[in-house]
Amino acid sequence: MFKEYDVIVVGAGHAGCEAAAAAANLGSSVLLITMNMETIAQMSCNPAMGGVAKGQIVREIDAMGGYSGIIADKTTIQFRMLNKSKGPAMWSPRTQNDRKRFAEEWRLALERTPNIDFWQEMVSSLLVKNNTVVGVKTNLGVEIKAKSVVLTNGTFLNGVIHIGEKKMGGGRTGEKSATGLTEQLVELGFEAGRMKTGTPPRIDGRSLNYSLMEEQWGDEDRGRFSYTNVSLPTEQRCCWITYTNDKVHETLKEGFEKSPMFTGRIKGLGPRYCPSIEDKINRFAERERHQIFVEPEGWNTCEIYVNGFSTSLPEDVQYKALTQIPGFENAKMFRPGYAIEYDYFPPTQLSLTLETKLISNLFFAGQINGTTGYEEAASQGFIAGINAHQKVNDKHELIMKRSESYIGVLIDDLVTKGTEEPYRMFTSRAEHRLLLRQDNADIRLTPIAHELGLVGDDRLAIVNQKVKDSDEIVAFTKKQGIEMAEANALLEKLGTSALTQNVKLFSVLSRPQVNISDLRKVSEPFEQLLNQFDKETVEQAEIKIKYESYFEKEQEIVSKMQKMEDKAINPDFDYNTLVSLSKEAREKLLKIKPRTLGQASRISGVSPSDISVLMVHIAK
Amino acid sequence: MFKEYDVIVVGAGHAGCEAAAAAANLGSSVLLITMNMETIAQMSCNPAMGGVAKGQIVREIDAMGGYSGIIADKTTIQFRMLNKSKGPAMWSPRTQNDRKRFAEEWRLALERTPNIDFWQEMVSSLLVKNNTVVGVKTNLGVEIKAKSVVLTNGTFLNGVIHIGEKKMGGGRTGEKSATGLTEQLVELGFEAGRMKTGTPPRIDGRSLNYSLMEEQWGDEDRGRFSYTNVSLPTEQRCCWITYTNDKVHETLKEGFEKSPMFTGRIKGLGPRYCPSIEDKINRFAERERHQIFVEPEGWNTCEIYVNGFSTSLPEDVQYKALTQIPGFENAKMFRPGYAIEYDYFPPTQLSLTLETKLISNLFFAGQINGTTGYEEAASQGFIAGINAHQKVNDKHELIMKRSESYIGVLIDDLVTKGTEEPYRMFTSRAEHRLLLRQDNADIRLTPIAHELGLVGDDRLAIVNQKVKDSDEIVAFTKKQGIEMAEANALLEKLGTSALTQNVKLFSVLSRPQVNISDLRKVSEPFEQLLNQFDKETVEQAEIKIKYESYFEKEQEIVSKMQKMEDKAINPDFDYNTLVSLSKEAREKLLKIKPRTLGQASRISGVSPSDISVLMVHIAK
Repeated sequence: MFKEYDVIVVGAGHAGCEAAAAAANLGSSVLLITMNMETIAQMSCNPAMGGVAKGQIVREIDAMGGYSGIIADKTTIQFRMLNKSKGPAMWSPRTQNDRKRFAEEWRLALERTPNIDFWQEMVSSLLVKNNTVVGVKTNLGVEIKAKSVVLTNGTFLNGVIHIGEKKMGGGRTGEKSATGLTEQLVELGFEAGRMKTGTPPRIDGRSLNYSLMEEQWGDEDRGRFSYTNVSLPTEQRCCWITYTNDKVHETLKEGFEKSPMFTGRIKGLGPRYCPSIEDKINRFAERERHQIFVEPEGWNTCEIYVNGFSTSLPEDVQYKALTQIPGFENAKMFRPGYAIEYDYFPPTQLSLTLETKLISNLFFAGQINGTTGYEEAASQGFIAGINAHQKVNDKHELIMKRSESYIGVLIDDLVTKGTEEPYRMFTSRAEHRLLLRQDNADIRLTPIAHELGLVGDDRLAIVNQKVKDSDEIVAFTKKQGIEMAEANALLEKLGTSALTQNVKLFSVLSRPQVNISDLRKVSEPFEQLLNQFDKETVEQAEIKIKYESYFEKEQEIVSKMQKMEDKAINPDFDYNTLVSLSKEAREKLLKIKPRTLGQASRISGVSPSDISVLMVHIAK
Repeated sequence: MFKEYDVIVVGAGHAGCEAAAAAANLGSSVLLITMNMETIAQMSCNPAMGGVAKGQIVREIDAMGGYSGIIADKTTIQFRMLNKSKGPAMWSPRTQNDRKRFAEEWRLALERTPNIDFWQEMVSSLLVKNNTVVGVKTNLGVEIKAKSVVLTNGTFLNGVIHIGEKKMGGGRTGEKSATGLTEQLVELGFEAGRMKTGTPPRIDGRSLNYSLMEEQWGDEDRGRFSYTNVSLPTEQRCCWITYTNDKVHETLKEGFEKSPMFTGRIKGLGPRYCPSIEDKINRFAERERHQIFVEPEGWNTCEIYVNGFSTSLPEDVQYKALTQIPGFENAKMFRPGYAIEYDYFPPTQLSLTLETKLISNLFFAGQINGTTGYEEAASQGFIAGINAHQKVNDKHELIMKRSESYIGVLIDDLVTKGTEEPYRMFTSRAEHRLLLRQDNADIRLTPIAHELGLVGDDRLAIVNQKVKDSDEIVAFTKKQGIEMAEANALLEKLGTSALTQNVKLFSVLSRPQVNISDLRKVSEPFEQLLNQFDKETVEQAEIKIKYESYFEKEQEIVSKMQKMEDKAINPDFDYNTLVSLSKEAREKLLKIKPRTLGQASRISGVSPSDISVLMVHIAK
């Protein structure tokens, strides 16, 4: 009934969809198995993509030929570049999306990918031979052969939903959980754990009083995730902001004795940085209020997502607390918020390709690795899909570097340090974040994807042109002068000191108060030059002019540290032979099997003196 | 958390959606409870609306202000008027629909109906006080009060899915079943039964060879369901026809020993007139082939619905048989077909308003009453919604007559005769089908809906105008003559005998070979008159001209039979006091509690002599 596939992807959320698309676009025959074809790429939680550090990840996926950015762009109902007032390393694109359109566009994109077949069913076990995965077995008992398997089970593995004192099986509300796989993996020797996440109640937007909230509109001059020229919706929808207050907090506290979080019924750890509202008022008792983002679920629906109000308190407590929020006095719920516990597998059991160490050709991506977030999941799926293809075709593995991408940071963190609570990306996790910007993801990563064959010559040519053009603009500013008289009126207006002599454009632009968009207005030759280039190229030039020196310093640090990263270690090296290593280091190194000295140095419990021992050994 | 609602509707399929909309539009406060808000108005089986007798029902719902016709029109990917070569009583509109758009438009239509609130959860029991329903209790334990409740649970009550020898709980594939309600209803004294239905496998359209199939396009001059001026998509999509053959049948037979149908694992009876493919080759062994309709699931998706290939054989048998159908040689399945068993309640337990006889203010609609089909479900929901509103507002009940609508036939059949297998509508079930046409549903029913307050003066005025205008056209044809010379060239071309004298247009149009569209071309005055009217008005006039005499005869029969229908019987009459009744008649009359002598006469087991006894009694 089925041919032998190159890659089977289990699960069709953000991770599974990207994995399937990447492997298929590289030429693998792919079977995407989902429990329900109607819920492919369902956004389980907020109807939004990107945000701080996460927006950078979406840009990185897009720069390498993944689909998340394109789908998000097509279905955007609002776009904002967050942190625009900070330095460019902090700029983070974020979209509100139409939930139904997002899922539909993903499904259509996958259908248009010729190498992807689909099968709707629950996978209940893996077929394993000689410690290598060779296929899957479904609930119906169908055996499907494959050279590799990518597991992206999300919150479905033995999922249990909690609302107050009630609990019920389910992978999402209204959907069944998946059983069988965890038990088999544990039997195969994997360590499994429980994690928890949650989602807020959904609200009937017709019942809200928006006049009591602050409007929040998207950027007027809106950006995008994708470096391709996907066409964007021309309109945007408004969101709103409101706040909790003392009364809301008091009401929520009344429910604590029935909270599955506080009564110990939930064993799994929840996402520290995306806490439930009860968590927030518990941990930040000093805070008088918390922000609530009121987000439409789509272009036309009245359904509202109450961002910031994730909760698993009893539904009547949720309701009472909600109605004490300004604008929510007459709120009607469509469904209560809930918490969900599910199985994950500590990701230290993976190599940096996301292949499991125990079973060859088996890859894990997304929440099964203990992460939270669509973008984190999508990027892991993308890399797992690539590596599944590379592995079964005897091609080189793809290991993303910490110095070249957030995706590299994410995977290295997971694999090297593991995680015991849902892992979320932040800019602070990236030591070289100055270089890992949303504006240069294409420059950083499109060449890698081109080498893999994931993007064509056309896309690489566009990136090279962008570099060339922005360099041309920078060079022009270093050559072209500006008259004191022309400049000083502008400088005064911008609140910076006047020039005392004619200088080059570059020198004026180096001042933080002066932007290209101002300066081009007072320099005819500059304006003429810039008119030849698109917005992103000009922006790239401006960032170079203003921050080039910082970037160069950061690049020097990268180069120095790269020496550690370049020192390869045989992952199967027997650390027991190195008696000078501390006992803890030996244990950890044997477990993690680092690929480089750099990776070894990031393992918790491996000290600088252990690294010295390793260096001496490697030098031999 | 919840106010007391006028009407709670449980389930949001075709029946539940129409029930909620009807009650809300009449002014009731409505809570629509569904297990999953993402699957409101999900088409569980074929992506199509209408068809023989069913298309008439959709027109009837629309004529009365229901939404099914409007939603189907908006989301049509292909329209065909079936049986156009037969008399107008057989003309039946049918659409292929975009499955996702259909569900989305229904949800948006409900969201735009101000009196409807939504709640996502499973209803596990009813709140009943003094044999009257007073609300529902959900799985979370939430009690929600209401003056009336409409149950539209579809296939979800204790749903069990069968594929070959495998079976699993589920309300639809990938969705949970609903539990608790049946058990409570049985405890309350209801009789419950099991029924079965099924659905074909879904296919990857990219794997089909369409050149081996027959194309089937929609009507060029396309019609519509709705009498309102909803705007229609301008394009249509192609469907295809192919056939099974000996090989396919042989393969399917190989699976019979594992078929849940033939091995007795399925206890419920399936739909006789929508049989599975294994049923067809079993019951019609002499047939060499069966038609297969290859229907796209939407505008853009490659998913294909294989109409005519419903099956619950093992998935490998389904697959092997499929690939022996011309065009399906390389077919890939997205998911196998399956059978589903579910609880229903024999509908003789209802009154003609669809209220249960045992529990006041409790209404049943759709598959829970033993019917099959979207249209049958939608119409019951519509009537139940209206009657729930009327009941809680002490307004008159709405009982649809057999002589004025298919909906009346449907409900009278269910309530009076009951059903032990899934009931489907046919034109042959309506004794007055000559009058129950798709072209006059507005004339028949819009006045009733107007009186109820479901449609406004504007819609009634349009209907009255249509009657007036078509009468004017008819009158014109009786007055306006045509010259022999002008007519004869046309008549010869149409293959009918030449005129021997000048006659009126009416006389020429009475010939079956001559249509208005032909005749107007050779009569300038006629053309001028017709140009003032729209297509439907002209069509109405033509039908009157050609068939008026038949309609009049039928109307006479209706009038005669109406005397029986007008003879009211007290539903609580104690038939035990009529000793001359047969024992069987007494039992049945006590169970069915007919409202009229006409209804009593249709109860199986009530003989003409029993009716005579009743007539004598009523005459007293």
